[in-house]
Order: sequence, then structure tokens, then C-alpha cells
Amino acid sequence: MQSNPRIQQQLAAWVEENKGHVILGTTAQYIPELGKADPSKLGICMLDEDGNYYCAGDTDEKFTLQSISKALTFIALSCHYGLEFVLERVDVEPTGEAFNSIIPFEIHRPNKPFNPFINAGAITVSSLLPGRTSQKKYEYLLSFLEKLVGHPLEMDHDVYDSEWKSSHRNRALAYYLKEAGFLEIEVEEALDIYIRQCSIQVSTQDLALIGLIIAYDGYNPITEEKFFSEEIAQVAKVLMVTCGMYNSSGNFAAHVGIPAKSGVSGGIMAAVPPKLHSQTYEFRAGAGIGVYGPAIDVQGNSAAGTMMLRQISKEWDLSIF
Amino acid sequence: MQSNPRIQQQLAAWVEENKGHVILGTTAQYIPELGKADPSKLGICMLDEDGNYYCAGDTDEKFTLQSISKALTFIALSCHYGLEFVLERVDVEPTGEAFNSIIPFEIHRPNKPFNPFINAGAITVSSLLPGRTSQKKYEYLLSFLEKLVGHPLEMDHDVYDSEWKSSHRNRALAYYLKEAGFLEIEVEEALDIYIRQCSIQVSTQDLALIGLIIAYDGYNPITEEKFFSEEIAQVAKVLMVTCGMYNSSGNFAAHVGIPAKSGVSGGIMAAVPPKLHSQTYEFRAGAGIGVYGPAIDVQGNSAAGTMMLRQISKEWDLSIF
Amino acid sequence: MQSNPRIQQQLAAWVEENKGHVILGTTAQYIPELGKADPSKLGICMLDEDGNYYCAGDTDEKFTLQSISKALTFIALSCHYGLEFVLERVDVEPTGEAFNSIIPFEIHRPNKPFNPFINAGAITVSSLLPGRTSQKKYEYLLSFLEKLVGHPLEMDHDVYDSEWKSSHRNRALAYYLKEAGFLEIEVEEALDIYIRQCSIQVSTQDLALIGLIIAYDGYNPITEEKFFSEEIAQVAKVLMVTCGMYNSSGNFAAHVGIPAKSGVSGGIMAAVPPKLHSQTYEFRAGAGIGVYGPAIDVQGNSAAGTMMLRQISKEWDLSIF
Amino acid sequence: MQSNPRIQQQLAAWVEENKGHVILGTTAQYIPELGKADPSKLGICMLDEDGNYYCAGDTDEKFTLQSISKALTFIALSCHYGLEFVLERVDVEPTGEAFNSIIPFEIHRPNKPFNPFINAGAITVSSLLPGRTSQKKYEYLLSFLEKLVGHPLEMDHDVYDSEWKSSHRNRALAYYLKEAGFLEIEVEEALDIYIRQCSIQVSTQDLALIGLIIAYDGYNPITEEKFFSEEIAQVAKVLMVTCGMYNSSGNFAAHVGIPAKSGVSGGIMAAVPPKLHSQTYEFRAGAGIGVYGPAIDVQGNSAAGTMMLRQISKEWDLSIF
Repeated sequence: MQSNPRIQQQLAAWVEENKGHVILGTTAQYIPELGKADPSKLGICMLDEDGNYYCAGDTDEKFTLQSISKALTFIALSCHYGLEFVLERVDVEPTGEAFNSIIPFEIHRPNKPFNPFINAGAITVSSLLPGRTSQKKYEYLLSFLEKLVGHPLEMDHDVYDSEWKSSHRNRALAYYLKEAGFLEIEVEEALDIYIRQCSIQVSTQDLALIGLIIAYDGYNPITEEKFFSEEIAQVAKVLMVTCGMYNSSGNFAAHVGIPAKSGVSGGIMAAVPPKLHSQTYEFRAGAGIGVYGPAIDVQGNSAAGTMMLRQISKEWDLSIF
Repeated sequence: MQSNPRIQQQLAAWVEENKGHVILGTTAQYIPELGKADPSKLGICMLDEDGNYYCAGDTDEKFTLQSISKALTFIALSCHYGLEFVLERVDVEPTGEAFNSIIPFEIHRPNKPFNPFINAGAITVSSLLPGRTSQKKYEYLLSFLEKLVGHPLEMDHDVYDSEWKSSHRNRALAYYLKEAGFLEIEVEEALDIYIRQCSIQVSTQDLALIGLIIAYDGYNPITEEKFFSEEIAQVAKVLMVTCGMYNSSGNFAAHVGIPAKSGVSGGIMAAVPPKLHSQTYEFRAGAGIGVYGPAIDVQGNSAAGTMMLRQISKEWDLSIF
Repeated sequence: MQSNPRIQQQLAAWVEENKGHVILGTTAQYIPELGKADPSKLGICMLDEDGNYYCAGDTDEKFTLQSISKALTFIALSCHYGLEFVLERVDVEPTGEAFNSIIPFEIHRPNKPFNPFINAGAITVSSLLPGRTSQKKYEYLLSFLEKLVGHPLEMDHDVYDSEWKSSHRNRALAYYLKEAGFLEIEVEEALDIYIRQCSIQVSTQDLALIGLIIAYDGYNPITEEKFFSEEIAQVAKVLMVTCGMYNSSGNFAAHVGIPAKSGVSGGIMAAVPPKLHSQTYEFRAGAGIGVYGPAIDVQGNSAAGTMMLRQISKEWDLSIF
Repeated sequence: MQSNPRIQQQLAAWVEENKGHVILGTTAQYIPELGKADPSKLGICMLDEDGNYYCAGDTDEKFTLQSISKALTFIALSCHYGLEFVLERVDVEPTGEAFNSIIPFEIHRPNKPFNPFINAGAITVSSLLPGRTSQKKYEYLLSFLEKLVGHPLEMDHDVYDSEWKSSHRNRALAYYLKEAGFLEIEVEEALDIYIRQCSIQVSTQDLALIGLIIAYDGYNPITEEKFFSEEIAQVAKVLMVTCGMYNSSGNFAAHVGIPAKSGVSGGIMAAVPPKLHSQTYEFRAGAGIGVYGPAIDVQGNSAAGTMMLRQISKEWDLSIF
């Protein structure tokens, strides 16, 4: 199917309409390098199963994955060792703790972090990636992501340095995890791989493509490649719905209803599964979405991006609920 | 469409297969009257959009709603005052607290219970039902439910008495809610309506019918009646996925993927939305499910019922994820 | 020894000096009847071992014991069943929880309330008083206190009624204690005895006398009567130092250093043990002190009363440290 | 006054009597180097105001200060900057948290660690010692302690190395403190000074001497030197009573009643203030006590040492209560 100019126009209109919402957020000040981003930016890219990209707004920006990487290391690790291996080490239960909770109530009694999207779970998952050093683990992850997006990816070294220096909270958490017996590798190694993965640079196009692959249960309908199993994709989508948008996950599910994972860089990756009974024709066959809007709200999600996705989901009937 | 005997046979076979799992649970001992139930029971009833009931196992039993009522008071209240009214008073965020958590970490900072499915949120919702007394509130709810199921319903007075006497935990919680300013009515009134709603008797057929109506976004496809709005149904389904199965909600979503609400009586109400791209033909147009299996696991869900739903969802591809 | 007019004059001067501090507090608004007290009142009564009372300021007022009663039920119960019996049921460890903490972190792992001065411990202690009903338990306690002070005591029924209606927090806590297995009697009975003991009316003279008896290890040096053992008095004094002034106990110990117990009515009972090496001659042989100042600070202690005791202790070198 | 041989004999007898209690504890396994100590050791040294040392049992051993150092850095810092400076940065309120609590509930709302004897408060205090580097801070503290004991002191480098490697919990806590804004210096510098102070080697004689100086309010009655103010000594004694024995502080106060500070090395430093009305003649003029018994109980205190002090306090009437 060919690209539909009406969809393109509609997206551009919605970006304009939602740009005002950037004032509901600010850039992440606690990571100085992220704080430097331009808070007025807003962009979206949608990709359909025929390979048509619909992009509107500020989609030339590159930004770092931050917490979006948590979904991707979960998938990469599950691909390598199997879902069962991962679920033995980290649970998939939502929790009410805030994303910047410094008190680590993050351990599910008796023996697992609640889920891979809270920092305790994410650091545990990263520490388990194949490879004996954080360099090797990083290379494994990067190679996995490069296969998904089809082109080389790079780390933003300034963001890495900024996070490495300012992540007292994550260091506290990682030493706590080590004390509690969750980390097999050294704490500083675990932090290194975790902060590296957060610092990988992507575009909204990249996020749309990975989102589409997740929506298609690990399958790229454009290149007809299979990257991971339906079971893994299914659990990833469950996690995105129940925990993907920090402490607004429930509200995002209620008002948007699309599996998604956000990061404090202002990125959102969303996976729109096929919905043949949808009330509209747009994206009935599913889609991937990448959003960038670095002004984040108190929960840590792109303020304008969230509002825009709410409008898009409602207008085009994309909710899975 | 006429009833399909193959479906009936398949369900009967699965009930047999899963009966062994009742030993993974016990009846709810902390409510003496529930403790008397026969733990070996297991039954399921599915209802399709043409009005065909497929029932297998112990489906002649009546049992009390218990926490399943939390989903129904949420819907009833939202119908009466509008969704916005309700969401101003209770949030829709999941939490990691156990169902029998006695420490009331159930209040979302700054001012709402986390969601209507934890006890703090459920008691708050019940207390807001229309009517000046708990008797009036109960009558309102009962009448709403009787319209949904199309026949009179009754309270199990023995269960009510048993819970009234043994619910120290809920009393503690309700006085805490009163102290914190969440209850406009008297504590004992709030407990009365809450325990009454928990004590309403239903059958698996009733749960299947209500489940179907939720799956059809408030619409009964058999009688062609509309009971509540799509928005309300959507939020109800989000709550069922994120918080419906107590502290296994994430695991249930990952392995079953059907919006559902359970109760400690061993009942489960599930709503299977239409899924036209499903890999099987059974229930592609959606369904309602009622399960009864009073032996509950440590999280509070029917042990064998959960296992059976896992098998059914996998075999007939019913997951929304 | 005869009464010393210089001491009397000095106390009167200090009352005047400290009256200004009443603005640092307010009367306890959460118990409406206590809220009606005159916040400008301040009075003190000291009693020496020869029976001389030195009273200054508003010492004609009667007021209710409130939390001061926690020290007295602890002593009464220990007298009846022995210290060992009591210490098996409640620990003597301080805790950092606020006096109005609604989250009951008050249970010392694995099986005891932290101490008899937090509400969980106090309600447990009260519930154990001899007698099969709350009426009998109350009569036992009242009779014990009347022996100590040497005259009849009465309950303030308006305060009792006010607290009975407004004590949602204590009800929540008591139901929680029942659920957790700490209360052998009915919750409402336990609350009845607890609120009754809080509502007993005393004067600063009464508190000074009981304080003197505690300072003298259970012995009244004036009447030469022995009421309770040295061991009980010693543990009572430890509790007064470590937990007697709510969450300012540590600061009170550091700056005043006299075993004391306060109540939200604005009363303080203090026990000045003999200190022969004191740098001053006043009260070297010990004393009892009763203070009344109903304007309480955020921790729940008489604002001006605390400041006045700080000055007195410093000037007359009364600290045990 | 000359040394009294009866006291010496009595102490020797009590060491023998209490040796059996070493089996109630084990050496601190979580710091491997401490775990190597001989758990059967038990020794005590008492020092009177005339300079007579009474030593019995294993008093030739040297051991590390561990948490005993918390009392000493508090005093050293208060000497240098004044008590007010210190109390602005750390409170003096007891808390119910266990010594090895990994969840840092250690911050008193809104802005101070609860007290200088929990790890959060102790690390904060150490980080404030004069000097721009941890080396300088350490030298300042060491010089202060050497003046008190009158001879050079040394660090146990093996213990330092062992703790430096195994203190994940303290690292977690220190990074948490940094994040929360309590540490002005670098985390690793703060840990370095903290672990150094814990690793300083002392004898029971040293602890007895420092205990005597604290009992005499900062004054050495033997050499007639004044080291710190009465106010500082008084707060130190309050802290020793309310928080000095970890989570048994309340019980130790109730059953022993002597201001004391223990460490997980098995050392206890106790300060017996003058008590002219004591029922016995021994140590009426006060004393200092040093105990060593490396088998520690679950709270972290020398098991046999605690029992022995209980007996001594009772027999010689040393309790301040």
C-alpha cells in the first residue's frame, strides 16, 4: 500500500495542536546533559506494515534511549537465554513506586525485583546480558539493536559521562542489589552497562520500527524477518501496558491504551497491534510509533507526547482495550 | 450461530485436566463461611455473542462475588456520576501491595487510593454509591446488577455475617480512610455496603454474561441492550488487566492476557474482547467467562481456575496482547 | 524541711518568662473537646521529699491524663502481673515513628509492639489490665491511681465522648492489633478502657506527687508508703527518657534530662531522681513535677511547658545525664 | 585511693560466670576479617577516678572500634565546631530501625538523619570532620583520640581492607545520602573516613579511660585535663542511653542502665557517672568500662559482655535510673 498523504497531514496538525503542552513539562534536570535539550521540541513518526513512514514535527533529532532501553534489554536477554531464565530472575508485576523513588521497595518478596522496568529490575537484567565484561555486554546489546533497526547505532558519550557522574541514586540502588545478592557481577560493571544502554542514540524512526516489530510479535512485516518469539513480544507488551509509563502506566492504559515505553529523554516507543475491528481504517493492521518531546512531566513521561498519543489513539481507535 | 458441541467437549476435557490443580490452593480460611466451601470444585461457563452458553464442571454452584464486586461497583458508580467524578476520587494506577496487606500503603500521594480494586479504593467507591444509607446504596447496586444479569440476585447472609465479624483488617482500613478524610459516610455504614456487595450470590453463568457485556464495551449483543459507555468499559478492562488478579495481575496478563477480576470465593469473571485476527475460530467475536474454583492460591485467585484459563487462552488464542 | 519561699518566687518568675512560648503551640484540635482549652494557660507544681508543694501559674486547672496514662497503666499492670509478664507482651525499645503516625509500623519484629508508650503498645497494655470488662479494668486502674494520689479521681465525660467519636486513628490501630493477634479482648472494649484512662482528670499537684513516687522508685517519702518495686520504677523511668516525650524524647533527654511523660492535653509528669552531686542545692534529694500548658507543639508536647522545664533543669542542675 | 583487691577478684569471678554466654553470639561474619576473631574471648577493664585499673579475662586483645567510633566522632566534631553546628546537621532522636537495615528509613523528616549512631548519621558526621581530604579528617580524629588515651593509636589495615570490600550496604547508604544532599564531600571519601575510623585499634583499657572521661563530663580526673564540655558529654550520654546498643538500647537501659556504646567487633565502652546515693560503695564516684567479647548477638552487641554488664550493674547498683 502506498503512503497516504491525509495521514501525514493529520499528524502534522496534531503536532501543532499539542505543541502547547510542552509547557506542562521540563527537561530532565537531574541529568545535566539531558537538561540541555530544547524543551519546545515535539515530533512523531509512525510506521505501517507496508513500510510507510509518517513523520511530523521535530523528527530530525537524535536522543538517548534512557528507560526505553529497559524494554529492549529485556527482549535481548530473553532471546538469548529464553523467557523462563529471565522470569526466574525478575518478576512481571507492576508496582506503585515512583520512578525516582530512592527508597528501594523494589524487591518482590521473597526474591525478585518486581519487574524489569523499575531500576532494580532493569539493572539486574542488564547485568545478566551475555559477555564477561560490561564492554562485551554492551556490544551484545548494541548488535541486537542494530539488527532490529538495520543500521549502526552510537552512544552519546556526553550523556553517558553526565549520567555516570550524577547517578548517585542508581549507585545506591546497585550497591543495595549487590548486598541483597541480586548482582553476580561487580556493581560498577553493572552500572557501566546500564548507563551505556541508556545513552544509546536513536531517532523517532528507529523507535517506530522497533515498535512495529513488537506489535508484530517479533516479526518485521516489511523485511519479513523474525527477530524474537511471540511469547517474548507478548510479555514485553504486557510490561509496556502495566509498567511502561512509570507511575502513569494505569492512566496511560486507560486514556491511550497502546503498549508503550518512555524514557526521561522524552522519547516514547509505542507498539500498535493489529485491530481488525477498529472503528477507523488508519492503522487497522497495526503500527509502530516513535515520539520525541524532551519536556517531561512529574512522572517522567514526555508531557506533550503523552497528550498527543491520547488524541491519536482516540481519533484513530488504536487502544487495545 | 448455533451452539458448537466440539467447544463444549473441549471445555469439559480441560476441566478434567485442570482439576488436579485444586490442590495448589485452599478455601479462604480467614472468612470462616468461605472456608466451608468444597475445595475440589471447578467449573467454567463461556458465553458467546449469539447467546450460546458452554458450561463444564461444577457450574450449578452459587458463590459470592467478593472482590469481583469491586469491578461492578466501579462501573455502577461511573454510570451514575460519570467517569470523571469517579477518577477524581480514585486513581487507576497499579500497586505492588498484597491483597491482604494490613499496612495501608494504599493511598497514592497526595490524595487518592491507588485504584478501585485495592480495598482502600473499593471501600471508597462503595461509600460513594447513590443513596443516603448503606441499605439504599446496596439496593442501587443490586438493581444495577439485576438489570445486567436479567434476574433477581440475593445476598448470602451467612457469608455477610461471617465477614462482618471477621473483617478486622477492613475495619482497620476503613477507620484509617475515615481519619485520612476519604470517607464522607460513617465507617460502619461504609463497611456495611462493602461487605454486602461482597456477599451477593452469583453463578458462573452470571459472571459469563457480565463478562460478555464488558467485552462488548457495555453492550449486550444478545439482547441488544446498552448498559454503560465504551469509556467506562475501557477503563474497567484496563483495571482488570493491571490489577484484576491481585498481586498476580502481571503474571496473569503475561500468561493469559484476558481482562479478568477474581474474588477470594474462587470466582473469576473474564471479558474476552473480539479479536478478528485470532489464530483460531473459537470466540473470535469475543466472549464472557465465569469460573468457579474455591481453592485459592496465596495471591487470592482460584488456583485451578487460573491454570485452566491459561490453557484456554493459549489454545484458542484469546490474549489481547 | 520547711517550704523555701525563694524556690516559690523563682518558679513564679520562670512561669512568667516562659508564658510567651505558648504561641509556639496550639490546643489539640483533633480531639474537639481538648481543642476548647485555653491555650494561654501555663502552670507548674513541684513537690519535694518533705511534702512541700511549690506551685506557680495556672495550677488550679484540671485536665485529662491522655498519654500520661500510658506510664501509669504500664506500672499498674506490672504491679499486678509482674514486670516479666508485661515485658513478654510489649517491648521497651524506642521507635522513630511520630505520635500521630497512622501507618502502624509499631510492631517490633516478630511479635511485640515496640514499647508501651506508642499507641499500639498502650492499647495492648490497657487491654491486659485485670478485670473481665472494660468497666472492671477501668475500676482497677482508677483505684490504683487513687491510692497513689490519696484522693478520688474522676473521668471527664465530655472528653471521653469527644475522643470516642473522633478516634478513627486509634480504632484503625486497634482493629489492626486485633487482626494481628495482639488483643485478647474485643476491639471496642479495648478502645473503651484506653479512652477512659486517657480521660481521667488530674491536677499538676497530682502529677507532681506521682512523679515523686516514680523518682523514689515506687516509694512515697512523705507518707512512707511503698506502691511498686524499684524494678518497675526503673523501667518506667527508662521508658520516660527514651519514649516519654513522643518524637522529641531524644531532644528532651539532651536538653532537659529528666524522666518525663507528656499528654496532648498539655500535661507533663516528670520524675527528678535524687542527685547528691548536683551543682545546686534545690531538689538534690529529688522531686516530682506536674506541668500544665495546653498549647502543644507539633510533636504533641506542651510547647511552653517543655521550654520551662529546659530552663529549670539547667538552672537547678536536675538532669540525670 | 588504692586499688581494691576484692573488686579485682569479683570481676574475675563474673568473667568466669558469664563466659558461657559467648555461645549466644557469633563473630560478625559479614565482615570477613572480624569473622576470624576468637568467639570464646571475654574481658573487662574498669577504671576508677583515682586511676586504678581492674582488669579480668581477655584484656590483652586489641580490637577495632567499629560503631564505638560513632560516639567519638560525634564528640570530636562537636568539640571543633560546637554542639549547635552538629545538632543542625544530625538529630538526637532514637529510631526503631535495625543496625543492618538496608532500607534507609534513617532520615528524620524533613532534613536530618535521626541520630549520629545510625549509619546515615554516622557517615554524615564523619564527612564533616575538619580537613579537606579523608586522610586529613582521619588524622584529626586520630589525634583527638590519642590525646584522650594518652598514647599512639593505629588502624587495623586488614580490617579496613575487609570492610572496604564488603560494605555494599554502607556504599548504598552513602550514595543515597549524597543523592539526598547530606554529603558535601565525595561518597568514596566519606566511606574512606568512615571505614578508617571503624578500623582504629583499641584495648579495653582505652575504652575504660574514654568511658571515664565521658562519665566525668569531658574531664579526666586522673590527669586533671578537660577535653570537652559538659554539654557535649551530656548529649553523648543521652545518645549512648537511647541509641548506643543498637536495637537493644531500650532493653540495655532497662536492665543495665549505664550509658554505653557497642561495636560489632564485640567491644563495649561504658560510662558510669558518679552516683553518691548508690546502695553500694564500689564505683560510687563513677567509672569507665571497656568490654571485649567478639561473639555478638543478633542485635550486634557482645552477647556475653551484655550479660556481664547486667550482672555488674545490678550487684554494684550502677544504673542511672
